[in-house]
Amino acid sequence: MSDTIFSKILRGDIPCHRVYEDDLVLAFLDVGPLSTGHTLVIPKQAVATLAELSDESAAAIGRVLPRLCRAITEVTGVRDMNVLQNNGAPAHQVVMHVHFHIIPKPDAEQGLGLQWPAQGFDHEAGAALASRLRDALG
Amino acid sequence: MSDTIFSKILRGDIPCHRVYEDDLVLAFLDVGPLSTGHTLVIPKQAVATLAELSDESAAAIGRVLPRLCRAITEVTGVRDMNVLQNNGAPAHQVVMHVHFHIIPKPDAEQGLGLQWPAQGFDHEAGAALASRLRDALG
Repeated sequence: MSDTIFSKILRGDIPCHRVYEDDLVLAFLDVGPLSTGHTLVIPKQAVATLAELSDESAAAIGRVLPRLCRAITEVTGVRDMNVLQNNGAPAHQVVMHVHFHIIPKPDAEQGLGLQWPAQGFDHEAGAALASRLRDALG
Repeated sequence: MSDTIFSKILRGDIPCHRVYEDDLVLAFLDVGPLSTGHTLVIPKQAVATLAELSDESAAAIGRVLPRLCRAITEVTGVRDMNVLQNNGAPAHQVVMHVHFHIIPKPDAEQGLGLQWPAQGFDHEAGAALASRLRDALG
């Protein structure tokens, strides 16, 4: 993987506003926030997408998300929030190092905006798809 | 917490197109998908928001996200995807039981649409905010 701004932050070559750190995870403030308290949570494992991440790193990120949500609510007073992780430029990924956004939603104007173009669902096709996914999971 | 459709699915009172299950986690197809392969990942622990989730349940969800992403790509052929978890009705949460969406992004029309109203960032205020968050995390 090519070097990213997050690799430079992990190495200490670029400063960050650090919120949390352990052996596998670093969390810091997003400097282009959608709202006050917008935090990025990244693995120290340098991979571009969630699909490439180890079980151990992914579990470590999962474990700290609730703790970070609670801290953000305690400090900002905002309970509503979105957690978002984008994979691939067409899915709005900008830095090619896995990152989870925690984005407080204080009001309608600030925070993440979502568009939800829901489709229909065919149960017969769905049953076949679920079966193929279970097979792919081994 | 009041009973939700996901509690009914976990009890087996309502069927689902199951993709994955372990002691702490269930994953199944969203029947109002944004794209083919749109999958929901929920903890068996019945809490409304991520902030309320145990370390153990949150780690278990985190651990399986990469496996599910890989399986979805293998079956659908789509590499680009968004992972989204909403907390609170103003942040677009509809079912009040924690759930992570894995949403393939096959093209510009299908999948999750995002609006990104980025704000400015004041480094002095950011340093103070990060310090308060570190304190809140103990």
